[in-house]
Amino acid sequence: MSTDQPVTVEVGLGDRAYDILIGSGLLLRAGEEISRRLPGTRAAVVTDENVAAAHLDTLKAGLEKGGIQPTVITMPPGEKTKSFAHLEAVVDGILAARLERGDVVIALGGGVIGDLTGFAAGIVRRGMNFVQIPTSLLAQVDSSVGGKTGINSPRGKNLVGVFLQPKLVLADTEVLDTLPVREFRAGYAELAKYGLIDRPDLFAWLEANWEKVFAGGPERAQAIAEACRAKADVVARDEFETGDRALLNLGHTFGHALEAATQYDGARLVHGEGVAIGMALAHRFSSRLNLASPDDAARVEAHLSAVGLPWRMSDIPGDLPDAEALLAFITQDKKVSRGALTFILTRGVGQAFIAKDVPASEVLSFLRESHPVSRKAG
Amino acid sequence: MSTDQPVTVEVGLGDRAYDILIGSGLLLRAGEEISRRLPGTRAAVVTDENVAAAHLDTLKAGLEKGGIQPTVITMPPGEKTKSFAHLEAVVDGILAARLERGDVVIALGGGVIGDLTGFAAGIVRRGMNFVQIPTSLLAQVDSSVGGKTGINSPRGKNLVGVFLQPKLVLADTEVLDTLPVREFRAGYAELAKYGLIDRPDLFAWLEANWEKVFAGGPERAQAIAEACRAKADVVARDEFETGDRALLNLGHTFGHALEAATQYDGARLVHGEGVAIGMALAHRFSSRLNLASPDDAARVEAHLSAVGLPWRMSDIPGDLPDAEALLAFITQDKKVSRGALTFILTRGVGQAFIAKDVPASEVLSFLRESHPVSRKAG
Repeated sequence: MSTDQPVTVEVGLGDRAYDILIGSGLLLRAGEEISRRLPGTRAAVVTDENVAAAHLDTLKAGLEKGGIQPTVITMPPGEKTKSFAHLEAVVDGILAARLERGDVVIALGGGVIGDLTGFAAGIVRRGMNFVQIPTSLLAQVDSSVGGKTGINSPRGKNLVGVFLQPKLVLADTEVLDTLPVREFRAGYAELAKYGLIDRPDLFAWLEANWEKVFAGGPERAQAIAEACRAKADVVARDEFETGDRALLNLGHTFGHALEAATQYDGARLVHGEGVAIGMALAHRFSSRLNLASPDDAARVEAHLSAVGLPWRMSDIPGDLPDAEALLAFITQDKKVSRGALTFILTRGVGQAFIAKDVPASEVLSFLRESHPVSRKAG
Repeated sequence: MSTDQPVTVEVGLGDRAYDILIGSGLLLRAGEEISRRLPGTRAAVVTDENVAAAHLDTLKAGLEKGGIQPTVITMPPGEKTKSFAHLEAVVDGILAARLERGDVVIALGGGVIGDLTGFAAGIVRRGMNFVQIPTSLLAQVDSSVGGKTGINSPRGKNLVGVFLQPKLVLADTEVLDTLPVREFRAGYAELAKYGLIDRPDLFAWLEANWEKVFAGGPERAQAIAEACRAKADVVARDEFETGDRALLNLGHTFGHALEAATQYDGARLVHGEGVAIGMALAHRFSSRLNLASPDDAARVEAHLSAVGLPWRMSDIPGDLPDAEALLAFITQDKKVSRGALTFILTRGVGQAFIAKDVPASEVLSFLRESHPVSRKAG
């Protein structure tokens, strides 16, 4: 265990401002960091069975050092846990522990646990204190900033939830060592996204240093901190997602369509991989629309490829539906106004923008050209 | 149907400010009032079977006039509807109607429907527009101001929910004509409460005019407006219930204990009746502690009695648990710090205050004296 000082990113949201601490060994400092900010608090920890097996004892030891003996609520792992039934179970667990509004609910886990736990913390007694301890790279760079919490509905993902800013986020870079490499890579796609949105320097730095980020040196904490800062900037401009925050969807329109087209089968495509392909397609599509240089698209594709991420549709194992069907997944996901779609496009690396009038016909032509079947045929 | 202009109460909560319109015939003006504030909106109406039978056709006609054809979601009547299962059903109904964040969810009903619907509106897509059309007097003077929404848990009432301010409240005084008189009276207890908290003029006015309020003249709208203004003032000072808002609990500590002691059996005691007895007891207890004159307690008792409300424990049909058991219900409801309890006490009509150090022993002695069995024995 390292004893390096963590990096602190302040998320400036007025009276909802909070710190993200990023570094190794933070699980063991959890009690100290929480009790410094929320003195005398009692706590519940919500986690899943896999994360509990790997990290719960360490966290409990860390909380103990701050005088906190938490109630532990353990959920099954997996996306299905983001449901009303599990929400009710977490809520009941918190109430059974007789926690009050000033007490704290701690999420120890990936995005699923963070989203579910934050939602529960936001509704028990109409809002308790919430602390996030994200244990996946994706959760550290994505859900740790922004205050979105929620569960899925049979009618769609993340359709039910609240905005709740945490009081503190502890991103322990050491726990990422236990992640399967494929999951780490998928999180890395979201990390690289922040460079592509509006931080060209970050993207260039990642091109030079990604191997160290994967290896787990101080560059890992540095990269995560930079991504959190980038997201915090966007969120501070648009906390409740009425405008600029849409930039965070770079790569997500194509990505979601591909996830849906593969029936959310994680064996074929996980979310971060969908985003990777989606980002490459968004750059290539922008180039096709003469908005950006083809060199930029090639540069993005090359980097994703270098780190081992999929970047084109043909990288997805198995057959895909045809271009018309993929377009239908896109239009299902969005309101289509007079045949025009909103997309996040780009003028080059770090120059993404919200394009509100993308003709569906252009999207369709592009999907046809990019489709593995067409490519083989052509 | 009257065509009087409604009274408008503005609830000043910064960017969450909204209007309460109070008057007769407002159901028929709903479409106009909503579309003026939320142009082009689509809507879902959530109601219960009883209210739907009495008022849904009128509301639909009123919405139609504003070009709104709502999806209707009908729940069973009664407190049991404030559950996770019904919350999920309402959420699913809103999503099934494909409403977006800018669309509106309308609650047509009493407190149960208002609390449940507001909670659903607060979590679908992380917050939609919410309009309240309260159809009970209690809901018009209580839940229409304050932004508290929620459901019950097996571990207690209203333990799960969010704060969500509506965009508009339409308090149609005409719909109150269909209320059973016992329910109207129970709502009146909460109305009188605002006079007792900090509006002595309102209480005196009610003493002189309560019969007109019950009869349904312009005095009814006037009284409701005054109660809403009183509550809005308290809520504006303390939106998220960290201080002054506790004043709204006048009568509720004793009242909740009596509700619990009668197993929430509405045939014996409904919430507003518990509050009526609780308010009388709070005044009598304040007098016993030499905080207020016994004349004030007698005045409160006389008014509650005049309107036909219960005001003492012996007014509750059937046997009550003894004083020790009632105290246990009170301490169960609250955190007890070193034998001291927080109570809303008073220095006289319109002079309520938060007392944080009320000895449990004093409460017990008072309960013994006030208990019907002791009184009969004594």
